[in-house]
Parts: sequence; C-alpha cells; structure tokens
Amino acid sequence: MNEKTTLYHCTADAFHCDFNHEFRIGDLGNAMLNAADMHSTERRFGMTYLNTLNKTWVLSRLAIEMEEIPQEHAHFVIETWVENAMKYFTKRNWDILSEDSSKVYGHGKSIWAMIDLSTREPQDIFAVNEGTITEYVYPEKSCPIADVSRVKTPAMTEYTEFVVKYSDVDVNGHCNSMKYIDHVLDTFSLEHYKQQQLHRLEIAYVAESYCGDTIRIYHLQDETGEHFFRLAKQAGEEETELCRLRITFKNKQ
Amino acid sequence: MNEKTTLYHCTADAFHCDFNHEFRIGDLGNAMLNAADMHSTERRFGMTYLNTLNKTWVLSRLAIEMEEIPQEHAHFVIETWVENAMKYFTKRNWDILSEDSSKVYGHGKSIWAMIDLSTREPQDIFAVNEGTITEYVYPEKSCPIADVSRVKTPAMTEYTEFVVKYSDVDVNGHCNSMKYIDHVLDTFSLEHYKQQQLHRLEIAYVAESYCGDTIRIYHLQDETGEHFFRLAKQAGEEETELCRLRITFKNKQ
Repeated sequence: MNEKTTLYHCTADAFHCDFNHEFRIGDLGNAMLNAADMHSTERRFGMTYLNTLNKTWVLSRLAIEMEEIPQEHAHFVIETWVENAMKYFTKRNWDILSEDSSKVYGHGKSIWAMIDLSTREPQDIFAVNEGTITEYVYPEKSCPIADVSRVKTPAMTEYTEFVVKYSDVDVNGHCNSMKYIDHVLDTFSLEHYKQQQLHRLEIAYVAESYCGDTIRIYHLQDETGEHFFRLAKQAGEEETELCRLRITFKNKQ
Repeated sequence: MNEKTTLYHCTADAFHCDFNHEFRIGDLGNAMLNAADMHSTERRFGMTYLNTLNKTWVLSRLAIEMEEIPQEHAHFVIETWVENAMKYFTKRNWDILSEDSSKVYGHGKSIWAMIDLSTREPQDIFAVNEGTITEYVYPEKSCPIADVSRVKTPAMTEYTEFVVKYSDVDVNGHCNSMKYIDHVLDTFSLEHYKQQQLHRLEIAYVAESYCGDTIRIYHLQDETGEHFFRLAKQAGEEETELCRLRITFKNKQ
C-alpha cells in the first residue's frame, strides 16, 4: 500500500454470509463501492464533495472475478486504486486479499463517469480540483484479470420481474448498482449455490431506475454454460434497457 | 466497556445509507446481530461453536428504539451484553453510540432461545460449557427503553406479498430475521421516509420460512398512527404465522 491506494478492512461477519457460510457477493460488491468511496473521499474527489459541485460519480462497467469466497468470520482487505483517468472516464481496480496478503480472494475492474446531477451529462473530470486526481493515478499496479467489456448479450425472451423498493435505493436516489446484481443472483436456486461458486461477473450499466419501477430480468444460459442477463424497465409498451450482465460459475470444491 | 460487553465498530459507509444519507435500519439490525455473534463467539457460546453441538441461537423477540439515525460517513459503535440468562432464554441488549460515547443513537433489547438443529426443540442453555454463560451476565447495566413485548396485533386483511430468495437466507438456512424487517420497511414509500424517521420497532418471531416460500405482509395503521404487521406463509389454503411487528415513526427534524 502507498498513498495511491486505500485499504478497506472487512470481516465476513455471520450475518453477511449466505447459507454456505460464505461472504455474500452483493455485500462484497457493496464493500468494493464503499472502499472506492473511502479512497476518493480521502483524496477529495468523493461523492460527498462532488455533490457540493452538483456532480457525482456513476459506475459505468464493473467486473468481479473470484478465486475463492471469504468464509464466515474471515478477516480480509479490499485494496483499491485508480489505474487511469481520462477526461470523461476513470478506471478503478480492486484486490480482495486475506488480511496478511498471503491469499488472493479475487479482483475487480471498473469504469466510472462523472456526471452533472441536474443534466446527467458527462463532466470533465480534470475540471474538478484542477485535475489533482492525476496525482493518484497508479497504472504501474497490475490487476491480473481480463478487462471489463461492454457486455454483449444474445437475444433473450424469458424473464422474471421485480419492483424497485426503498431498500434498493441508495444515496444517489436511484436503484443501487449492486442491487441489480443481488436481484440477478436471486434468480438462482439454493441448489445451484450448493454446487456452484461465482467465478466472474461483468455488468455494463446503461440507464437508471427509480423506486416503484418494475424491472424485467431477461435470462439465457448459452451452450458453454455462461449466463447472460439483460435488465429493462417497463413503461407501458416501451422498454428501457438498464444494464447487461455476463456471469460464469465454477464447481465448488 | 468491561469483559462482559463487546464493542462492535461501524461506519455509515455511503453504500450502507438510504437516499436520505442515513444508515439503513436493515443494515443496523444486521450489525446488531453481528455484534451479538462476535460477543457470544468471543465467550465460546457463539453459533459456530453451538453448531458443533448441533445447536444454535434463535432470535425470539427484538426491540430497536432510535433517537437519531447515524448519518453518512459517521463512525459509531454498538455495545452489546447479556442482561440475564435463564434455562431456556437469554436477554441481550445493545447501546448504539457515537464513537466517543457522547451521543446516544439508540438502544436494542432482545430475547433468544437455544434450539437443537435437528428437533428445533428448546435446549437447556446452562448445559453448554457447564453454564459459563452466567459469568458474562450483566444485569447492572441499564438499557433505558421499554421491554420487548409479545407484540399483539389487531385483525388485518390487507396484505402485500414477497417470495423468499437466495439473498434473504442466512447462515442458519432460513429467512434472516432482519430481512423480514427489510421487507416490511420496503412497504413504505420514499415520500414516507422523506418525512418520517423510525422511532421504535418491535418484532416477535413465531416460525421460520425458507427459500421459495411466499410470504404475506398484513398491515394496519391504527388511529394513533402506530403500524402493525403480521407476516405469514402460504401453503395452499393454510397460513402459518411467522412474525408480528409494531412500528412507530416520528417526524424528521
């Protein structure tokens, strides 16, 4: 760790674990977002500061790849840093490690945009704090997983639905990025999770949804076993795409 | 703090907060359960140890009363201790305080039973570790909120429904105690939470539910403004009561 990275300490407390006594992926994703917020807040480009400028960060794409899931009561750390900053996008990565760094649980990669809170238009990242974000860019640190793609999905017709509720909505006032993942992972049975562990998850965000929206989760598993999802909100006959996911599982050991 | 209490440190990280930038009650309840698990694990009567004896703790009743909700980025602590231990029940309390103890956010009271994992029958608490739990009983420490009642509810006919999913299920293999609260709080609109803050919540647990169960949330607000809920699972024409809640809100300042 150096001044360019932040270490966020986690414990796989009992009630953050699933029935397998493994840390829940939704909680892991949330912890990664919290680590990102802590990292950016400490360097004065966090959401709370951006809100005073009528701006915020939005997550554009995210990949999480897990070798192993932290078990109940495990202490672990999430290290996060900014790999690159461009005018309209930053790349942020994460390492998920045991507390003594001897074990790698997994990694994450992501792309973020900065938007104006009123117009929702992309903002020039370097215009904030005279571009001091560049002082924290750390391209030398490697993150050994494949880049996060745009997530192309095949045509899909089968779907389940959910309605966005109070607990789905985060500080940004819309459905939380990780909650889409929670709702997608909830489409699998307990039987599935007894046998399979999440290996890689990719999500590309397209539009936002709000409390009360009805969301369709389209799903298709292709012949290689890979799972594709497309989430869309309904307004009469119209459908607005919200995000696309690609998920692979591996057999539990 | 002395050897009879455990301090569990929390931060109201951005993504544990609701759209009001306040720590989510569901996450607070979960943190209280995690503090309880840490306290009991440190003293060798935690769930993980009990599981080796084919036993576990089940939450029978819980009350949470909040003066104020921790705001985004606040550091706070949850102190927990056992007020009393009887043959079949223990009473556990919580204080929710600012990190320097100068501010009281709220308190919690609860009643727990120990059950056999196979028969689900109540077990003699003093039979575990030769009753050493009594060394940690701390009746001298006061908890200044009303005791948790059996929660009597009026007759109710209006209901909404939800289905128990993977993310609702905890390490005990059934729907998590706090998830019932989450689903109940999700029946209120964002508009409600703009104006009202949770003041007191009481819940009495009756039976367990499992992944795939369809749960009815019966609701009635009486003439004093108090909210009553009864959750029941459906199996054909039959209905099994799961838990009963009584919730009061107060106007936000």
